Amino acid sequence: MESFKRNISLLMDFYELTMSNGYFVEDKKDQIAVFDLFYRNNPDDAAYSIFCGLEDAINYVRNFHFDENDIAYLKSLNIFNDDFLKYLKDFKFRGDIYSFEEGSVVYPNEPLITVVGPLIDCQLLETALLAIVNHETLIATKANRIVLASKGRSVSDFGARRAHNIDSALYGAKASYIGGVNSTATTLAGELFNIPVSGTMAHSWIMSFENEYDSFLSYAKLYPENSVFLIDTYDVIHSGLMNAIKVAKDYLIPNGYRLKGVRIDSGDLAYLSKKCRKILDENGLNDTIIIASNSLDEYKINSLIDQGAKIDSFGVGENLITSKSNPVFGGVYKLVGMYQNGILIPKIKISETLEKITNPSFKDVYRVFNKENRAIADLLALHGETIEEPLTVIDPNKPWKTLVFNDFTIKNMRVKVFDKGELVYKVPDIEERRNFVRYQIENVIWDEEKRLVMPHIHYSDSTKNLYDLKIKLIKENKYAK
Amino acid sequence: MESFKRNISLLMDFYELTMSNGYFVEDKKDQIAVFDLFYRNNPDDAAYSIFCGLEDAINYVRNFHFDENDIAYLKSLNIFNDDFLKYLKDFKFRGDIYSFEEGSVVYPNEPLITVVGPLIDCQLLETALLAIVNHETLIATKANRIVLASKGRSVSDFGARRAHNIDSALYGAKASYIGGVNSTATTLAGELFNIPVSGTMAHSWIMSFENEYDSFLSYAKLYPENSVFLIDTYDVIHSGLMNAIKVAKDYLIPNGYRLKGVRIDSGDLAYLSKKCRKILDENGLNDTIIIASNSLDEYKINSLIDQGAKIDSFGVGENLITSKSNPVFGGVYKLVGMYQNGILIPKIKISETLEKITNPSFKDVYRVFNKENRAIADLLALHGETIEEPLTVIDPNKPWKTLVFNDFTIKNMRVKVFDKGELVYKVPDIEERRNFVRYQIENVIWDEEKRLVMPHIHYSDSTKNLYDLKIKLIKENKYAK
Repeated sequence: MESFKRNISLLMDFYELTMSNGYFVEDKKDQIAVFDLFYRNNPDDAAYSIFCGLEDAINYVRNFHFDENDIAYLKSLNIFNDDFLKYLKDFKFRGDIYSFEEGSVVYPNEPLITVVGPLIDCQLLETALLAIVNHETLIATKANRIVLASKGRSVSDFGARRAHNIDSALYGAKASYIGGVNSTATTLAGELFNIPVSGTMAHSWIMSFENEYDSFLSYAKLYPENSVFLIDTYDVIHSGLMNAIKVAKDYLIPNGYRLKGVRIDSGDLAYLSKKCRKILDENGLNDTIIIASNSLDEYKINSLIDQGAKIDSFGVGENLITSKSNPVFGGVYKLVGMYQNGILIPKIKISETLEKITNPSFKDVYRVFNKENRAIADLLALHGETIEEPLTVIDPNKPWKTLVFNDFTIKNMRVKVFDKGELVYKVPDIEERRNFVRYQIENVIWDEEKRLVMPHIHYSDSTKNLYDLKIKLIKENKYAK
Repeated sequence: MESFKRNISLLMDFYELTMSNGYFVEDKKDQIAVFDLFYRNNPDDAAYSIFCGLEDAINYVRNFHFDENDIAYLKSLNIFNDDFLKYLKDFKFRGDIYSFEEGSVVYPNEPLITVVGPLIDCQLLETALLAIVNHETLIATKANRIVLASKGRSVSDFGARRAHNIDSALYGAKASYIGGVNSTATTLAGELFNIPVSGTMAHSWIMSFENEYDSFLSYAKLYPENSVFLIDTYDVIHSGLMNAIKVAKDYLIPNGYRLKGVRIDSGDLAYLSKKCRKILDENGLNDTIIIASNSLDEYKINSLIDQGAKIDSFGVGENLITSKSNPVFGGVYKLVGMYQNGILIPKIKISETLEKITNPSFKDVYRVFNKENRAIADLLALHGETIEEPLTVIDPNKPWKTLVFNDFTIKNMRVKVFDKGELVYKVPDIEERRNFVRYQIENVIWDEEKRLVMPHIHYSDSTKNLYDLKIKLIKENKYAK
């Protein structure tokens, strides 16, 4: 691309800079810290989310620097130490980053990403890491719900026009594809990310002609292999469908093509799709598909299928690209430890709300599989801790509840992405990431966790060592209640 | 900026290209068309919205071009005419654009933007114009609701981390500022758009010190004029507030400074703010402000003020930057007319839903003011139509309802922005746009339209000429029901 890259390094909350300036002046800047990026609740009361955004987070970290304009701007604010601003001129990230792989099924309270490095390095990345991961995980998760509800039917992202500006359309299209949709209408996403693009005509195409028939005929001649007509400009059944069938008979079929599809963008989609299917079949057009769009989401799609709607493909716009029913993925980024003289001092954030007390220290995340390779629990452990059989785990919010696992396999779910500032991980191809999502959904996750409403909640537990550390730190804190 | 500009021209739905290729092949490309960008409903059941995004839409249109990679990508899809792709190489927008000014109070069904130009030029702009205007109008409108609910108290945008990726944080910060918030935490928005930035410390600052007192003292020494302490890391009243007061007495006051503020980010904000206020006052710290944050929106702020919470300043994050309660601004872009041999042929989109029938033809939008300069109605008229007194207007959805205005003034609400592809309008300075919003809210809009719930619905009417044209076109369409 001509110049698709931008310097977005100052896309950060201002306090990242006031704090970093303070760390610099207090000579704490090279003290090694550990930060966890995690979230507390799945959108739409789901059982899991689809982690996404790692590739763009990596690009952000690699390109992270302050250019002359950035430094000049910060200087103009008259609150930063001159030596700190000089320090920022040559700044580049020097830490380690551990992360789930993109496309992973993830659960609340697990560190999706852990950043270990000099305090300033960790702090400065906070805002953009969250904005990228929160957004892409939100949309990949929503896309996956919509794809699941569509039960094998094709789904296309039509959302760009209702996205929250350019990046939201673009990275939303990418996250949707990883989450499982089949194509996007957003052309630039096709160009940049190698995603299949799709699209045929808007009402304006039809209205720019003298009549609907002429508009369809013209389109059929231009794109005989991709003849999908939008049939709701005037009247779905009496005008649109009739003209589509007439063009099929007048032009497409005599020339060896088929009427590929009709799209309905308004009205009662259940009723209209059934009526269209019947009329198409009566005219021998059994292989013409019916595409539906108009404010669809996983709940409406589920209901349409339940009603026996004859829809082969869904175009989903605003409800996907904004995750309308739950447009916030609440990822947070918290200090969980600091090294002093090479010793890790775990840190905990106390809160009156039980679930808001953080899990302290540098941790690993394991997934526990049964003999059929289904994921039966996730396990937080202290970093480097040995996991042995039989394994006893504790639910940190219900400590009277322990589980003992025998005959299991475990997998350390995170990979090292940066080592002392160097990228040591290659993000798989986008098709591999998309296939990884599908593989987990089909083979690893329990059906009970995939329910649209009231799914089974995954076991997310702690090792005894981690649990004991947490309790010790809570008890040491005199304000914990 | 080093390279903040990107080529985002292909951020368009793929059908814009399949249609444009068709217009080219059909030799319709230079036929002059008229498209309206409008919306049907205000977010959050409000009475009006704040139009925003014009500046970025202008930048988009000015920079609109296809670079070599774009052309190569389109060629690789093997569906476009070679001459069309050659044509795109030198393509630049050649049309006229009329628009409301940024910051205008706007109402449903008014053309916010009208594009008049060659059919291809109009069509290719659709998706990005919508994505930009829908997003920025959504956020400016939400910001204005939050600012109104805050009744003069300060509001800051804390949303970047929950935004839908980078642009959403950045342009959301800009739209929020135009809508009335006082500052943003998003540093890059400060640099790019000249918006005040604010921010002090996160929990990580406090947790990186041995204890809370040391962290506050260090901060006070670094930023004695900006000593705002986050007091909920361990316990708001017993730890945070006590340490803040101690640092005020130990360091700030003896050195001629004041404790500027304390911030509460969790817990019962009504209860805690009142308790903090009382203790601060008892310690002579009457000029210390209390800042609150934690999933606030206009409804929670309204409730907090109603409860007598002692909060001077609100930090608003996810609910502002995603407009969580209503994250979609449903702007659409519809063909309303085409010129044939210099004569405008009006176009109408029929729908079974009354409100979805479009207003045909090239139109002007007038606002009608009474003698006190309050806006009493908006009026859609045919482009160039003369408006005379007494003025009889018709509600197009309730045609039995007419209003007659005497003793009024009217204003044509839109300006010409592009003339045959040349920019002929200068966007006012961001402070002017922000002041324009405030001026209208304070002086022009009725209080009854500003209610948080169940506001008065503005009169949005048509001239008799426009209404008669619409009815004629509906009657001519045999499928209209």
